[in-house]
Amino acid sequence: MDPQNTTLQFLNDAASHFPSAISLAAGQPTECFLDRLNLPALMGTFFRHQAGTAALGLEAKSICTSILRYGPTAGLIRGLISQQLAIDENIAADPETMLMTSGCQEALSLCLPALCTEPNDVLLVCNPTYAGAICAAQMNRIEVRSIATYPVDLAEGLKETLENIRRTGRRVRALYLIPTFDNPTGRVLTEIQRRQILALCVENGVVILEDNPYGMFQFEDRAVPPLAALDCHGCVIYLTTFSKTLAPALRVGAIALPKTLFGDRLACQSLYRRLIERKSCLTINTSQIGQAVVGGVLIEQECSLQNWVRPACNLYHANRDAMLEELNAAFSDRSPIHWNRPNGGFFLSVTLPFVFDVEAALGCARDFGVLAAPMNLFSLDESQNNKLRLSFSNGSSEMIRTGIRRLAQYIRSRLILSSCPGRAQCEAQETHCEARPCLAQNTLCQIKEATSC
Amino acid sequence: MDPQNTTLQFLNDAASHFPSAISLAAGQPTECFLDRLNLPALMGTFFRHQAGTAALGLEAKSICTSILRYGPTAGLIRGLISQQLAIDENIAADPETMLMTSGCQEALSLCLPALCTEPNDVLLVCNPTYAGAICAAQMNRIEVRSIATYPVDLAEGLKETLENIRRTGRRVRALYLIPTFDNPTGRVLTEIQRRQILALCVENGVVILEDNPYGMFQFEDRAVPPLAALDCHGCVIYLTTFSKTLAPALRVGAIALPKTLFGDRLACQSLYRRLIERKSCLTINTSQIGQAVVGGVLIEQECSLQNWVRPACNLYHANRDAMLEELNAAFSDRSPIHWNRPNGGFFLSVTLPFVFDVEAALGCARDFGVLAAPMNLFSLDESQNNKLRLSFSNGSSEMIRTGIRRLAQYIRSRLILSSCPGRAQCEAQETHCEARPCLAQNTLCQIKEATSC
Repeated sequence: MDPQNTTLQFLNDAASHFPSAISLAAGQPTECFLDRLNLPALMGTFFRHQAGTAALGLEAKSICTSILRYGPTAGLIRGLISQQLAIDENIAADPETMLMTSGCQEALSLCLPALCTEPNDVLLVCNPTYAGAICAAQMNRIEVRSIATYPVDLAEGLKETLENIRRTGRRVRALYLIPTFDNPTGRVLTEIQRRQILALCVENGVVILEDNPYGMFQFEDRAVPPLAALDCHGCVIYLTTFSKTLAPALRVGAIALPKTLFGDRLACQSLYRRLIERKSCLTINTSQIGQAVVGGVLIEQECSLQNWVRPACNLYHANRDAMLEELNAAFSDRSPIHWNRPNGGFFLSVTLPFVFDVEAALGCARDFGVLAAPMNLFSLDESQNNKLRLSFSNGSSEMIRTGIRRLAQYIRSRLILSSCPGRAQCEAQETHCEARPCLAQNTLCQIKEATSC
Repeated sequence: MDPQNTTLQFLNDAASHFPSAISLAAGQPTECFLDRLNLPALMGTFFRHQAGTAALGLEAKSICTSILRYGPTAGLIRGLISQQLAIDENIAADPETMLMTSGCQEALSLCLPALCTEPNDVLLVCNPTYAGAICAAQMNRIEVRSIATYPVDLAEGLKETLENIRRTGRRVRALYLIPTFDNPTGRVLTEIQRRQILALCVENGVVILEDNPYGMFQFEDRAVPPLAALDCHGCVIYLTTFSKTLAPALRVGAIALPKTLFGDRLACQSLYRRLIERKSCLTINTSQIGQAVVGGVLIEQECSLQNWVRPACNLYHANRDAMLEELNAAFSDRSPIHWNRPNGGFFLSVTLPFVFDVEAALGCARDFGVLAAPMNLFSLDESQNNKLRLSFSNGSSEMIRTGIRRLAQYIRSRLILSSCPGRAQCEAQETHCEARPCLAQNTLCQIKEATSC
């Protein structure tokens, strides 16, 4: 469990160790618009809706009392979320087979062991993928295997991997996937890819756990439908969360089951019962305070978050543009540094000609004042050692520009360190410095030396 | 996992199926004083404390923003809780080895697999015990064994059980215990019993998970110190929760580790790291909204909840007295019905001369308008089939009186059904009706018949 846990802790805690560094590492949403969440007012809205009354003079007293008790195991606001999924994502989710969770992380902690019940069951993931999915599986002693994606297409890789695993006598029970604005890569699967993946999973009885925390943040082009909206075989369990659209501290997410599991309605009901049982044992129920706040927003926004997320979406769009501009300015086409251009979400991915691990990231934060997330934190093997994840969801465009300039300085210092024969040449323009991959781990001391170079 | 899950769902959901029945089943705290939890004001108090400023004019805006983000994995208010444990429980808990959880149930979901890491590790519990402890163990495939308590003393039973389990080659790694106002029995362990249990656990390297949700509700006599306050060997992990003292919906609890594990400081630090890792994977972190509310109360109450719980404690005291009075009025000394007289907490335990299972409880709720919790919901075997748990934490004394009168009617009808040769005699005084244990399961239909008798 160690590597993936390190990831979550790194992402959750590392920024606090370098308060003066600009963080391009954390995947948290902007805090600019959190002040719209007027907690008591939203709880009041929700309570009046629940009570089916328009008693506007209702005292704070009664609002508190009704929300502060234990609640039903499955949750309070499934109906509202079902409506929101229908409007915003074109997903038909039945409230009767939905379950509210303490954020999407708990949804994974519930679904993975409820699905992978046999010792030879395997969870399939992309590589890299969200570290929380890997550690939720490992915590439940579920084997995790990754799809061979490079250099083949994801669907092709999936087919090959399913065959390989079947040959070893193991069963791929579930595929964890973030099809839209993937964490950590920013990648979006096309509709064709989605349909290919769905067909393969239906054919092989593989349940897809579709995680979609970033789908609402589409900057340009037309949104690709979620897998759950394309699924007509009972193949996709949809996981939703309000941590990115509303606020992380609400700790509110939900699991939406399909109508059947591959046509079997009883199998789906049995899975739902197992999930409810596990929820009882894990955290009893999801805080009704958090649910009431989410419920209040959904009621006030007529069950669509499209208007609500617009200011944040515009900010992320501007931030992504600023990040891409600075990367373009810092590294020429001939440079060995590459990155992608996601049309939404929180992240983009940068490929470097040298290893960028946690030690390197901490050195970069300390000496260059910018924190980036090593991609190998999200990986099951060493294939991602030369990559990093940059987040454009936090701070202002100006901060992001400064952050990227600092990161560029760091990258140049690493390139110089690995390729320059003597210090004199280091004073030359960085684009003149022909970089070769530096596969040896540089000590922080070496990096410091390079800085003064 | 089924039986224990049924319990949690029964307790969480059953009352809603019989809205007109009086519930003496649910272990939830009274709602009478929930209106004191002014959420925005308490969050404001906490935020000003955190910011180290007395800026009373602080806008709701900034308060929200600071609380609505992700927070540190270990939690925000460990220092305040540490102070509260010192004042209210005489427990010296180091904030550096405390971890905030989404209620005590998550604390169990974290501790049990972090402690019981080997396949032959066993969790020991009392029988009956809190069902959530059993299902948290079973969910993690940890074997649960119970202490042989009847007819011997708990410490004697523990000694015998430890020896028996050791002989089978298995290791008792942890003992889950509610020493004060036990759920479900209401039993309080004496200080002598506690010291005996501690000595046995230290001798055998068994970690005690001390769960103490009810300890603050002491009606009379002097409080017995918690095990964690008596422990000087690093044997006790203390679990605290604010679900009963403040409000269930906060979903805030905490794990407090001892300074060492049986003298080994490194082992304790390693356990703490494992807990933090598991927390990251299970729910990432505990809602800062809930933590801020708890923090606000602790600041306003100068880190003691003694004054805060007084009104609820007085209510429970009066309710317990009403319950005991009605039980005394309904059943004479010669009656085969027995119960205990706990000097605090939420529950008492009733022994019946017939089986009282879920089916019986549902029949009783439907036909007699009172819901009681069958004790076998909390049991690992059939030894508790003739008992039930009554909760006096909910509703008014008058409601409790009515509830007990209805329960007495139900009990009489069962006694009559099992012992009266003919209907005519049923019209005699119930005390004339010499009851014999009715071990056969009565169908609801039979119970209905008895009612009309």
